[in-house]
Amino acid sequence: MTDIPKTMRAMVLKRHGDMDALEYETDWPVPVPQGREVLIKVAATGMNNTDVNTRAGWYSKSVTDATTGGAYDLDAKADNTWGGAGVQFPRIQGADVCGHVVATADPQDAHLIGKRVITDNWLRDWDDPLNMHQTGYFGSEADGGYAEYCKIDARNVHAVQSDLTDVELATFSCSYSTAEGMLARANVAEGDCVLITGASGGVGGALIQLANRRGAVTIAMASESKHAEVAKMNPAHLLTRGPEDLKTALKDATGKDSVDVVADIVAGPYFGTLIDALDRGGRYTTSGAIAGPIVDLDVRTLYLMDLTFTGSTVIPPQIMTDLIGYIERDEVKPIVAGTYALQDFKTGQQAFIDKTHTGNIVVVP
Amino acid sequence: MTDIPKTMRAMVLKRHGDMDALEYETDWPVPVPQGREVLIKVAATGMNNTDVNTRAGWYSKSVTDATTGGAYDLDAKADNTWGGAGVQFPRIQGADVCGHVVATADPQDAHLIGKRVITDNWLRDWDDPLNMHQTGYFGSEADGGYAEYCKIDARNVHAVQSDLTDVELATFSCSYSTAEGMLARANVAEGDCVLITGASGGVGGALIQLANRRGAVTIAMASESKHAEVAKMNPAHLLTRGPEDLKTALKDATGKDSVDVVADIVAGPYFGTLIDALDRGGRYTTSGAIAGPIVDLDVRTLYLMDLTFTGSTVIPPQIMTDLIGYIERDEVKPIVAGTYALQDFKTGQQAFIDKTHTGNIVVVP
Repeated sequence: MTDIPKTMRAMVLKRHGDMDALEYETDWPVPVPQGREVLIKVAATGMNNTDVNTRAGWYSKSVTDATTGGAYDLDAKADNTWGGAGVQFPRIQGADVCGHVVATADPQDAHLIGKRVITDNWLRDWDDPLNMHQTGYFGSEADGGYAEYCKIDARNVHAVQSDLTDVELATFSCSYSTAEGMLARANVAEGDCVLITGASGGVGGALIQLANRRGAVTIAMASESKHAEVAKMNPAHLLTRGPEDLKTALKDATGKDSVDVVADIVAGPYFGTLIDALDRGGRYTTSGAIAGPIVDLDVRTLYLMDLTFTGSTVIPPQIMTDLIGYIERDEVKPIVAGTYALQDFKTGQQAFIDKTHTGNIVVVP
Repeated sequence: MTDIPKTMRAMVLKRHGDMDALEYETDWPVPVPQGREVLIKVAATGMNNTDVNTRAGWYSKSVTDATTGGAYDLDAKADNTWGGAGVQFPRIQGADVCGHVVATADPQDAHLIGKRVITDNWLRDWDDPLNMHQTGYFGSEADGGYAEYCKIDARNVHAVQSDLTDVELATFSCSYSTAEGMLARANVAEGDCVLITGASGGVGGALIQLANRRGAVTIAMASESKHAEVAKMNPAHLLTRGPEDLKTALKDATGKDSVDVVADIVAGPYFGTLIDALDRGGRYTTSGAIAGPIVDLDVRTLYLMDLTFTGSTVIPPQIMTDLIGYIERDEVKPIVAGTYALQDFKTGQQAFIDKTHTGNIVVVP
């Protein structure tokens, strides 16, 4: 067993609030695995919107702008969102961990020691793993990976055989499982025409690659300044962000003015335009609303066009197992926008919030 | 073959507009079946919101209040809604026909003559009947049943063996197929807790009965003045219309403050309250929006709660075949609120609009 120190460096969230709610600690206790938990020496941890949203208290309905922090008031819905109770402080965030298992509590998990793993972020009731009502989120209801060490249930770690670097592997578990969950909920299949918003972000890029591997025709929307970067994800078509006349833009790009699926993590004022672009029987699938969660919906369009909307948050374990297969078969390839040391976390999160990057931002302890 | 006159009485819609757009004609040509069409001598025709909505031009997005008629401006979406083109005038409305086949054009359909039938309202491409993109609606893209005679494709008529009266049978094809389509889209199954809005209407009552026969626990919402009537449909629980504190009302009624499914034809300002009552993984299914189609949606609730929304309009042929089975096995029982002669159609439609009735309103020529 590796020599494990008693304390470590960690980025600790002390309360809901703005960036000042995060404090860099250099003498924080190393977690001690219990039960079926394993201890991971963190190599890299990918950033996600969840970090920002949880910090700001955005999962409460009274907060609509995650980037400003500001007032929050966790209501019952927000409390229920992840695990039946609000976030407890202090909390180490960070869900997308790549690292090596260095200790286990239960002898049956000893085979994991030394393995390079990534984490399944959903803290499940492993006696009833398909029960979506009993979950927590790694880095929200339990400490996560913005530290030198973290612990998690052995059934939440997946060994990966891959030539990808630790930093690259740290981009998968949140953004790619989120994206795969969205596509699975919408039953995206070969030949589907899929419009993807926010394509320059981590989830957006994952949506392009994962929809491509399902045989869909992908249409990515992103700011034109990012098109060269987004093109590396190989969308079939690229549109500017929020074209005023979306139907004409679609027709010009694909020959058809509607799509089968909208995979959206943006929402906001453009929501209605996206819905109007769906063909009869079309599907809207979402796992985010970074441009604003409160939207106008015309219920007539929902029913007269036989649409289906699917929200995706809690993901069944199979999604992660599938994803490991995609990684090991080189069917997906992450794009790393930048790497930040743990002590430079706030600079990295500001870059993440500013959305000037394309791809994933990763923190290395 | 019955002696068929050349002209008939009919209620004819001359244009989009208010009740004056309907004119009672006593010398209107009897339709002549061609191709695979059959001629039906109408015994009874059930009223539906579609009649009112189409008259008012409500399927255009610029009209939000179906009951007033008023301005309309059929945009491309409205034109596409039913069949690729706007409604042509003059038009005889009325989709829910019960009658007897009295003539056929093609000898292969001669076996239908004399049969008591009800109609499948979706005018399909019978070379490709599952193609939801190529449909029209009986009484919208072709003349329907507010007349002494109507014609329709032989594959759209279903002979029914039942002790129910003609008037009772005329309540099924639109309201029950709409309701069954909604429940099928939401995969309502045994044990699901289903909240039903507008329970005193034709579709609402059908939702109660059809959800009950699937083994669901039904919770019907209706004005208290209608509870005695709605109770005849056997909901497991009855709530007043739009309780201010829905979660508490649900908890008091069922012991649980959330439901698995909301089957809604009302929408309007109460939409958000309905969505908030859904449990994680819950389903919202709709085929109407009589309280107003434009609603506020919190996309966070959609995705954080893993919800599914399904709209249901165009219904696969199997739904109608299933429904005939339910009728013949006495698994559903219509409630007739009132019967109006064809010349009293406008009085009947006003009663329908005023929603003071419980159950279905039927027109007899």
